Amino acid sequence: MIDRIAIFGTGLLGTSAGLALRASGFHGSITGWNRSPEGAQTALAMGAIDSISANPLQAARESQVVLLTVPIYATLDWMEQLSAVLGPEHLVTDVGSTKAQITTAAGRLFNTPDRPGFLPGHPMAGKERGGAALGDADLFRGAVWLFTCDPAWQRSPASAALVAKWREWVQAMGSKTVDIDAARHDELVGWVSHLPQFVATALSSLLEDEVGDAPELKLVGGRALREMTRLGASPYSMWRDIAYTNTEAIQAALHALEQRLAHIRENLKNPALRDEFEQANRFRRE
Amino acid sequence: MIDRIAIFGTGLLGTSAGLALRASGFHGSITGWNRSPEGAQTALAMGAIDSISANPLQAARESQVVLLTVPIYATLDWMEQLSAVLGPEHLVTDVGSTKAQITTAAGRLFNTPDRPGFLPGHPMAGKERGGAALGDADLFRGAVWLFTCDPAWQRSPASAALVAKWREWVQAMGSKTVDIDAARHDELVGWVSHLPQFVATALSSLLEDEVGDAPELKLVGGRALREMTRLGASPYSMWRDIAYTNTEAIQAALHALEQRLAHIRENLKNPALRDEFEQANRFRRE
Repeated sequence: MIDRIAIFGTGLLGTSAGLALRASGFHGSITGWNRSPEGAQTALAMGAIDSISANPLQAARESQVVLLTVPIYATLDWMEQLSAVLGPEHLVTDVGSTKAQITTAAGRLFNTPDRPGFLPGHPMAGKERGGAALGDADLFRGAVWLFTCDPAWQRSPASAALVAKWREWVQAMGSKTVDIDAARHDELVGWVSHLPQFVATALSSLLEDEVGDAPELKLVGGRALREMTRLGASPYSMWRDIAYTNTEAIQAALHALEQRLAHIRENLKNPALRDEFEQANRFRRE
Repeated sequence: MIDRIAIFGTGLLGTSAGLALRASGFHGSITGWNRSPEGAQTALAMGAIDSISANPLQAARESQVVLLTVPIYATLDWMEQLSAVLGPEHLVTDVGSTKAQITTAAGRLFNTPDRPGFLPGHPMAGKERGGAALGDADLFRGAVWLFTCDPAWQRSPASAALVAKWREWVQAMGSKTVDIDAARHDELVGWVSHLPQFVATALSSLLEDEVGDAPELKLVGGRALREMTRLGASPYSMWRDIAYTNTEAIQAALHALEQRLAHIRENLKNPALRDEFEQANRFRRE
């Protein structure tokens, strides 16, 4: 039933989605648009899209589903533009890492019987580096793909049918679909996704200052160092929008971790250190 | 030339060393001692040792090389006892994660022409959980095995020959041997090994408080969370001694990270965040 998809943003997620759709048996058209033409060319050459659109709004009108795979503020911009040109027979969906602002915008601009549908989504999948060239048909396999719909929305029958069909394609790509409240989503990912990222960035940045040019670094650094700094390679371009749209949750999480580190620092020769290790062990229990 | 080895401590490292020696073609005797008899029985059943010693000091006297694979304070205790009962025809070596105190003790108790030799060692290999049952003949393959000898030491010819032979066995087990000053070792591992561990412990402990019983945790947590908290499973029993013997370096590193996290927290909506991401990216450049 879905046979015309437009992907806006052929970076890692957009290209991977195109490849995953093809690998899952999607035989319809996939047109792509990307801010930089090179990224679109790469996605085309890899088979993630079958055409490049020079006019994204027209491409959206000619598609049933528009998949927004761009940073959060770009997603919010496209939502404004697309809500003005699409009708109740269309569905727009996204992959943004914070969901409160996007879900609020979806309620304001979409999801009434006379407007296009919007399905706010967040696949828990990615890599520390972006770009079409890293696109991977298996990126979403085994992942959870979260959706943060507001139960009060009244979508048109056509867009509601597209929502159901898109969920089936997400499952066909190998993901488990899970529904969660948007505010709870942002609070939770503040702890389990955003905090780990900012910790890895802080640790990597600090180590670059302290030992970045130490000749022994490559010898002494092991798996622990590699793992704890892998996310240090993550691009600012993606995380800037996350920092802007989940600021309070991230600030609270960072502040709590600063206090926890100070507590450990003040108790290195004290039984309180045992309590911290035992509590950390509990987090990692099966 | 080495054909009688005693391993004190058949946990992860001791059991792995016995298995790795066998896999590398060591055909001599390997006797084992362990504080808990169960760990020694497991190592014996796995083939890491070929006998269990009920009298470790006698086993040491009957061996050429004693490998200490116990926590740091236990290593320091054994050094006191072994220096009193062994002679210049013996070599003792260790795998402790901090090297300043052990290397100082080695100069005080060993490494004169009339005393046993001591080779302070630190293989950069391990797992977040310990125990004989996790022993792995390939644990040291591709790892760096650091040594922190004092160039002023005057070992007996017999123990010097054993040092050379033990280095060959370390290489046969798949490790690259590297010499480094003990104080520099402790400073460097404070940054690249101990700091990542205490960060993972703090993060895991904090998350256990904040989201440990959240039903959505298993759904939302991805690779980033798993990686950044894997070391949260590390045992206090091992890290207690590291915290006690490298306290100042770890305190300085923790304090510097607290400041870096506060800087990021205060600049989430500010171009200074870009600088932190770009500096972190530099640490992860190839």
